[in-house]
Amino acid sequence: MIKRIAPDAQVIDITHGIQPTNVLQGALVLASTLPYMPEGIHLAVVDPGVGGDRKPLALRGSDGRLYVGPDNGLLLVAAERLGAVEAAVELAERAYRLEPVASTFHGRDIFSPAAAHLAAGVELEALGPKIGVDKLVRLELPAPDIGTRRIRATVLYVDRFGNVQLNLRPADLEEVGIEEGSRVEVAVGFERYYAVAARTFAEVRRGDIVLYEDAYGSIALAINQGNAAEMFVARVGQEIRLAALDA
Amino acid sequence: MIKRIAPDAQVIDITHGIQPTNVLQGALVLASTLPYMPEGIHLAVVDPGVGGDRKPLALRGSDGRLYVGPDNGLLLVAAERLGAVEAAVELAERAYRLEPVASTFHGRDIFSPAAAHLAAGVELEALGPKIGVDKLVRLELPAPDIGTRRIRATVLYVDRFGNVQLNLRPADLEEVGIEEGSRVEVAVGFERYYAVAARTFAEVRRGDIVLYEDAYGSIALAINQGNAAEMFVARVGQEIRLAALDA
Amino acid sequence: MIKRIAPDAQVIDITHGIQPTNVLQGALVLASTLPYMPEGIHLAVVDPGVGGDRKPLALRGSDGRLYVGPDNGLLLVAAERLGAVEAAVELAERAYRLEPVASTFHGRDIFSPAAAHLAAGVELEALGPKIGVDKLVRLELPAPDIGTRRIRATVLYVDRFGNVQLNLRPADLEEVGIEEGSRVEVAVGFERYYAVAARTFAEVRRGDIVLYEDAYGSIALAINQGNAAEMFVARVGQEIRLAALDA
Repeated sequence: MIKRIAPDAQVIDITHGIQPTNVLQGALVLASTLPYMPEGIHLAVVDPGVGGDRKPLALRGSDGRLYVGPDNGLLLVAAERLGAVEAAVELAERAYRLEPVASTFHGRDIFSPAAAHLAAGVELEALGPKIGVDKLVRLELPAPDIGTRRIRATVLYVDRFGNVQLNLRPADLEEVGIEEGSRVEVAVGFERYYAVAARTFAEVRRGDIVLYEDAYGSIALAINQGNAAEMFVARVGQEIRLAALDA
Repeated sequence: MIKRIAPDAQVIDITHGIQPTNVLQGALVLASTLPYMPEGIHLAVVDPGVGGDRKPLALRGSDGRLYVGPDNGLLLVAAERLGAVEAAVELAERAYRLEPVASTFHGRDIFSPAAAHLAAGVELEALGPKIGVDKLVRLELPAPDIGTRRIRATVLYVDRFGNVQLNLRPADLEEVGIEEGSRVEVAVGFERYYAVAARTFAEVRRGDIVLYEDAYGSIALAINQGNAAEMFVARVGQEIRLAALDA
Repeated sequence: MIKRIAPDAQVIDITHGIQPTNVLQGALVLASTLPYMPEGIHLAVVDPGVGGDRKPLALRGSDGRLYVGPDNGLLLVAAERLGAVEAAVELAERAYRLEPVASTFHGRDIFSPAAAHLAAGVELEALGPKIGVDKLVRLELPAPDIGTRRIRATVLYVDRFGNVQLNLRPADLEEVGIEEGSRVEVAVGFERYYAVAARTFAEVRRGDIVLYEDAYGSIALAINQGNAAEMFVARVGQEIRLAALDA
């Protein structure tokens, strides 16, 4: 669809691996990835509300990036990490859709045509009426529960290596006294595991569980040359509890 | 291979997810997808007969589109939906193959080189001798069995969301009295399920089974925010029986 | 990352399907594939030693191709099949990295930037200090054990059709008297199967096990219209024993 409307546009796929209907996962992957992508028109679709009354959107960030996708919170996490959202419109202009619009595939019939027309030089404001940025739907990001030497965290993402990304930043570990070399109890449901906090897999033995800062600045769990997600039977949204053991 | 011969060609992948040897599935996905793709040289390979006596083909449609693939029916469904096939040749000219041709990988050694040479401006007729269009191998498309308030349908495709596409069009449902809002019994083997006919997922509750017209104009079964294919253990080619219940 | 640094570079993905940490599999797929790819800058990352003391490399082959990846043997099999390695450097120059470099994602922070800068015209020697080619880490390729009418082989690769590639060439089969039409016993652990040596699937019946020369010049096992890897429960690195039966 994009190449029909904008033959010179370069299309770069980030992923087709987001779990169906998992808007939060899509939003977090987009936010982690975009800082490393060329600036452009960022199209994202995870859209359980397709065909209902959720609005189709295009946004412009204060840095000039453009975003296209459903008004369900998918775009805002990324757009606001990269700068404020400056303008938002509803994709209502029929001239920039593929008519008739199918009830179940707005990726093809609304979002891709809008992104392609933006790539071809159409102004954001031509795509439909303005919406107040304060009216946009927002996701609630899960916050960790930080206690004394203990953290209740949530799995945000599992990559294809089985590495398990948590909703934690390095400062959260510091707060409970976990530092490089610390031994850490990892509780998943009724199961208990033992991990070591390290900077890189190369510092631990094969098969060790590692708690580390991943390449996106989040805290993650991995098994050196193994698959942590399989061992923990970890899914996005699941609770994982960490406890600092005495050094 | 394509970029070696035609460095300026733009390559767009439709899918690498067709089940091995499932020519019918490949033909239907191609026919559903091409109307939304830029016009070009359409290369498709699902090729259980590789190395046997099935011919390698290139076709030209009456709208100017070109098609490359095996003579097993894969290309014709798409080509004829978009207009009549105007010319067909057998890919016999050795100058446009990668010699020596491997016995098991004509995608690399015959089909991709032919598509690339067409992209680089070689005439269809230069690729090999003409074949009569009436001589081309055709697939038999499964037809639904439509009774009184009952239909025996066949699964044509299962997408990555678990939505189950049937060999039915909206007119088939009308014929047995199924309309928006109708309750429908869905029988798969000895199992019975209950679905509702709706225009979009947003009209039903989470977990409801929906019978709807999908984005390609076919009738499909889905579970709102669930996976219908997993529930039905549905596979391409399987029979699914629908019965209209009294409203 | 590549497009940020070299917007005009064309990026072609070979595969994202290498098993995590399987450097040998990555090296063999690269060596099989590159002869069919346009000459360019070949970036490969299978990197269990990321964050440790393995060096990041760029190489130049005698045919002018450039290679970027970790110094763990991944690149050398391909580079040496296509000609001698003429120069090697360590990717140490900070100006051509994404700083700060994450400890676990050198694909993004070291290898892709290096490949992109090479694509944009930077000289290999500018990326860091020279390394002697004789100092590069080499993989030990598994060699078959060839006896009298018997071979112990190793699985090198399983493709998505379930075809099982072995570390054998046609000459190895000749040596033990297996030729076209021969019946062959295939032993996997305690299980025994019977295969026929053939040039192409089209020569055998549906469901037959075929021993054939695949499209990369290696010997492979397949089931005509079936999945050999599932039947054999075959994994990369596993031993498979072949015995010629009397004709």
